Amino acid sequence: MSGFFTFMDTIEVGVLGATGVVGQQFVSRLARHPWFRCTWLAASERSEGKAYKSVAPWRLATSIPGDSAERIVDACVPGRGPKVVFSGLDASVAGDIEGAFAAAGHIVVSNARNFRMDPLVPLLIAEVNPDHLKLLDEQRRQKNWRGAIVTNPNCSTIVLAMALAPLVQFKVRAVVVSTMQAVSGAGYPGVPSLDILGNVVPFIGGEEEKMETETLKILGSNGGRSPYPAAISAHTNRVAVLDGHTMTVSVAFENKPAIPAVIEALRNFSARPQELNLPSAPQPPLWVTEEQARPQPRLDADLGGGMTVTIGRVRDCPVMHVKFVALGHNTIRGAAGVAILNAELMHAEGLLQ
Amino acid sequence: MSGFFTFMDTIEVGVLGATGVVGQQFVSRLARHPWFRCTWLAASERSEGKAYKSVAPWRLATSIPGDSAERIVDACVPGRGPKVVFSGLDASVAGDIEGAFAAAGHIVVSNARNFRMDPLVPLLIAEVNPDHLKLLDEQRRQKNWRGAIVTNPNCSTIVLAMALAPLVQFKVRAVVVSTMQAVSGAGYPGVPSLDILGNVVPFIGGEEEKMETETLKILGSNGGRSPYPAAISAHTNRVAVLDGHTMTVSVAFENKPAIPAVIEALRNFSARPQELNLPSAPQPPLWVTEEQARPQPRLDADLGGGMTVTIGRVRDCPVMHVKFVALGHNTIRGAAGVAILNAELMHAEGLLQ
Amino acid sequence: MSGFFTFMDTIEVGVLGATGVVGQQFVSRLARHPWFRCTWLAASERSEGKAYKSVAPWRLATSIPGDSAERIVDACVPGRGPKVVFSGLDASVAGDIEGAFAAAGHIVVSNARNFRMDPLVPLLIAEVNPDHLKLLDEQRRQKNWRGAIVTNPNCSTIVLAMALAPLVQFKVRAVVVSTMQAVSGAGYPGVPSLDILGNVVPFIGGEEEKMETETLKILGSNGGRSPYPAAISAHTNRVAVLDGHTMTVSVAFENKPAIPAVIEALRNFSARPQELNLPSAPQPPLWVTEEQARPQPRLDADLGGGMTVTIGRVRDCPVMHVKFVALGHNTIRGAAGVAILNAELMHAEGLLQ
Amino acid sequence: MSGFFTFMDTIEVGVLGATGVVGQQFVSRLARHPWFRCTWLAASERSEGKAYKSVAPWRLATSIPGDSAERIVDACVPGRGPKVVFSGLDASVAGDIEGAFAAAGHIVVSNARNFRMDPLVPLLIAEVNPDHLKLLDEQRRQKNWRGAIVTNPNCSTIVLAMALAPLVQFKVRAVVVSTMQAVSGAGYPGVPSLDILGNVVPFIGGEEEKMETETLKILGSNGGRSPYPAAISAHTNRVAVLDGHTMTVSVAFENKPAIPAVIEALRNFSARPQELNLPSAPQPPLWVTEEQARPQPRLDADLGGGMTVTIGRVRDCPVMHVKFVALGHNTIRGAAGVAILNAELMHAEGLLQ
Repeated sequence: MSGFFTFMDTIEVGVLGATGVVGQQFVSRLARHPWFRCTWLAASERSEGKAYKSVAPWRLATSIPGDSAERIVDACVPGRGPKVVFSGLDASVAGDIEGAFAAAGHIVVSNARNFRMDPLVPLLIAEVNPDHLKLLDEQRRQKNWRGAIVTNPNCSTIVLAMALAPLVQFKVRAVVVSTMQAVSGAGYPGVPSLDILGNVVPFIGGEEEKMETETLKILGSNGGRSPYPAAISAHTNRVAVLDGHTMTVSVAFENKPAIPAVIEALRNFSARPQELNLPSAPQPPLWVTEEQARPQPRLDADLGGGMTVTIGRVRDCPVMHVKFVALGHNTIRGAAGVAILNAELMHAEGLLQ
Repeated sequence: MSGFFTFMDTIEVGVLGATGVVGQQFVSRLARHPWFRCTWLAASERSEGKAYKSVAPWRLATSIPGDSAERIVDACVPGRGPKVVFSGLDASVAGDIEGAFAAAGHIVVSNARNFRMDPLVPLLIAEVNPDHLKLLDEQRRQKNWRGAIVTNPNCSTIVLAMALAPLVQFKVRAVVVSTMQAVSGAGYPGVPSLDILGNVVPFIGGEEEKMETETLKILGSNGGRSPYPAAISAHTNRVAVLDGHTMTVSVAFENKPAIPAVIEALRNFSARPQELNLPSAPQPPLWVTEEQARPQPRLDADLGGGMTVTIGRVRDCPVMHVKFVALGHNTIRGAAGVAILNAELMHAEGLLQ
Repeated sequence: MSGFFTFMDTIEVGVLGATGVVGQQFVSRLARHPWFRCTWLAASERSEGKAYKSVAPWRLATSIPGDSAERIVDACVPGRGPKVVFSGLDASVAGDIEGAFAAAGHIVVSNARNFRMDPLVPLLIAEVNPDHLKLLDEQRRQKNWRGAIVTNPNCSTIVLAMALAPLVQFKVRAVVVSTMQAVSGAGYPGVPSLDILGNVVPFIGGEEEKMETETLKILGSNGGRSPYPAAISAHTNRVAVLDGHTMTVSVAFENKPAIPAVIEALRNFSARPQELNLPSAPQPPLWVTEEQARPQPRLDADLGGGMTVTIGRVRDCPVMHVKFVALGHNTIRGAAGVAILNAELMHAEGLLQ
Repeated sequence: MSGFFTFMDTIEVGVLGATGVVGQQFVSRLARHPWFRCTWLAASERSEGKAYKSVAPWRLATSIPGDSAERIVDACVPGRGPKVVFSGLDASVAGDIEGAFAAAGHIVVSNARNFRMDPLVPLLIAEVNPDHLKLLDEQRRQKNWRGAIVTNPNCSTIVLAMALAPLVQFKVRAVVVSTMQAVSGAGYPGVPSLDILGNVVPFIGGEEEKMETETLKILGSNGGRSPYPAAISAHTNRVAVLDGHTMTVSVAFENKPAIPAVIEALRNFSARPQELNLPSAPQPPLWVTEEQARPQPRLDADLGGGMTVTIGRVRDCPVMHVKFVALGHNTIRGAAGVAILNAELMHAEGLLQ
């Protein structure tokens, strides 16, 4: 961490929807965070007043953090808890609750999908579109919120958008992507074992639409209100993998770039979080492997603490121009990790005050 | 079975490479065949003179057929064994042995890749390109063989070619396909469990090239010597599935056909093996499902005794024109089953005499 | 099938709880049954009046039988439906419904656990304790039922009891059994994939108690009211297997029998269903393999149409006397298949009139 | 780490069999070791003279350590390399090579099985039988070695012996254990995926004998030359798990202890490595969980950096006296990790000079 932040006090944060799978990821990652201190856990009313460990069916391989284990869970009531809250709320309730929190002055950093496509809400990947944070002024004004909402994209969208970000310089025009997604992306209990043991399920509800629309907002201009001018076609599939979404990607450009130029662009990709040396920013954000049969989720998903996206097999595509394989950790880079990185960026930019 | 064949005697056949995984599939399927009677098993010299059951490490869930279990294995020597032989030989030896057998007057129906791209050898899927059998006359003449060789394509190519066959009427121009392939396609011991448990391996040696070239020969004219004029881009991946290759397919046409027309073309696809009511011909060859999350290998690979290819999720593609999911059983429709079906067609056409 | 039954008419049967996983197994297996014709499907009220195919989320690899697919589902109301009903009801409702059906004159052949340990209800495995059917007279009298209830044991208990049945001649005194059970035993959605992919769960609620108590009732005398005098200790575990419960078994006897005598007893085990040549009776009921690394669920669970229990690795136990591995198909031999076999026995014994 | 070792220089060590799976574990763990510095990598002659990264097909999820990656691999020639060498050699060559190294003055800390049952060689688990190191004097004398050999037990034996160690105070008399073992225990390529996907293999060559004999040597007196007086019966099974051997254990004692006393004994188990605060010694060595369905390999194998053995479900056994579930990481606590811990103990006891 750079000396720039040395004298900083820690920032109190809370978690909305703390008992769910994404909420658990927030709690786990915040327990070791150098800037943020998680002091407030909120969930549905049936958990209110109970010790966190007794209402959070812990599914992570790491232990439940000691100080959170005994913390009494609060209800999701605006005004309670610290100014900055991370949201792992389920989409069925996230819309109302997050809106109320923003109105009441909280800054909500959300993984839920409800506000993602709202033209006044940044759909943020800290490395890809940090300038979309400029939407916040107009968001506050038009929504009449004292606080704010910033969202992060869907897990598979994030992996794709990270891989495409360095390639927009070559003017991407079309993308065909086919995913092989981990079961942890579906939460808990999530995918029944009878559906996925020794099997592939070639459908994930709403996922293809998210990849096809969210990606263009993220890469778009004017805070995402002008979508990036490309066509995206997604095939999304569930496979018997625990963590890590793998995807094959074929890309057409305005003019075909040379493969070495594409590799160099991916390798050299660095961005604001890396410049600012943010605590969760992986160095480098993209790892380009030259091994023949990589990336693989079991071997590569944890790279950079789960924040690095790995790209492999960059080569000519006989139909489009370039094809490759991309992989990212769906519950870290694709959910809680990216939300925390987004909050770090906002803090560094003075937007959490 | 139609009355047409009622008075026919059974035809003796043999198996080259009988101890391997594909060879075992031949032995297992031929044991129940109404026309063919397997009376000769050949393998490498170290198996010669031994009982089949003692040298074939049986990996199928069905039992080893009683009459084959005790059969003494012969060496792969041309002139021995019946006129018609199925070949499950490994590519490292198939070239020489199959050529020698053809020269000596045997009709070799082979699953090996060695002769697949030979312009004088039919690369045959009985339903897709039965007319390619007309190459045999010239094959015999130019190669100076008394017998003949007919090959079947690679397992993943077969599934793709079956799905594309009814669509060539709309003039296919480009295909992007991404596979999720079963481990049984790699034989035994094949894929190490450490590589595939909870994992995806985004590379299968030589597989993408096969899909990109074999498909165009199969769909081509002039016995395959004029490749079909389209571009194909394949991404091939191994997943933790036992049997059944699933693939997502995006297709561009000269002019975009309507989705209902595409579905109707797939549904109505029927061909020479179905007309002739060949024993291994599934009715229908393609099954188009309307269920949202199908086909799935665990539920659908065995359809039609493993000979049906299932297509699902036929829909618009925002980048190409049409996209869908295709699934076929890789060791049945994709290997031993298609070879036997090819031999049935040859018999019905009088080409096994 | 023996000539004994040749002139018999088919018997109409119904299924209670037809939409669940066990109910689907009943529907699937009855569709091909030579004696029983399934003409009535009943489920909870929210399915009443709807086509079966629209309310049964079909999870089997075989297709939903054509005549059942369109059948309108009825409610579980006694007096409706045929005299003989199979029950795949959930334990939460099976007690009341099955009791009411028996009172109203139905013969209920049930897979539910509610009446299993009732001293007046046979806990029946047709091969093991056919004489327990004699309880039915007293059941009717004491319960004042016009019909009757016959239950089958829990799936893992059945595999164990089948393996022990031929060994009681040596006076079994103690058994330590450790199971590795398939996920299909937990129904659908059942075991979450996050719990079982690449994992073992060393606990299945209530399962150890069932194995320890049900087995002794089945092997007991006086219709099971005098439990068999042995001690059983069960360790039950869930593993990443689709179908087939595997278990390691160590057995102590009053006097240690020789291993060949044990193997011979297992091999020669045959019983009333085999004598009567009942349609679902496997020949033989136990298969003893001499292969070093068998039985295995993937290769052996389907033996005998899923009705055979396979035993392997019979050898000395340094602590108890004899140890071995046993395997059976949990949803066939362990649920719907054994219930249908039990009903076949009852019919042959004139108990379905 | 205690101040006791503060001024110590680092100790140079080497790895025999460095390119195999266990060798890779040694290289990976030694790269971060506070005392040992790995400066020499040896393997078979076909790797000699090549960069380690080019001959070690790296299968671990962590990256190959930078300084080892480029190191030139040496042949396994005694006299080359540092005094202390860890051996991950295959059993087919370990006997001769390790003996020659010991004769030449090296201290060989070996994971191979060749010398495990030699009455002059300690079969060491640092927490369980540290006093067995006293064998070394007599070993040197009788074998006429200038160096020495210390071995660690087989992976499943270690988990069992760790669980039994605190219970010998109650006089263990008999143990029935049934394992569910991870595929990483079989090395690479190891278990074929066709054998284990969705399957259980109820046999592991030689494993049951190792558990039954090694455990008694470890718990025995007189340096293991007087085996512990108990009978052990092992059932060993392979399951679809990557890392972590789970086992169900039933134990009979001279007199039945109360369950709370057993739990307390397991909880309070601590030993010489913990007293000495050795770098690889987990605190505590055994973790006793009270959760209903634990331990599970996916959630618990990594506890204590993979060095903790987790015990759960301690309860009465209706046949023996006490039963429970034990779990340990097979390639860390069960192989490379325990060997390094053993070497740490030897260093602390002044036995590496």
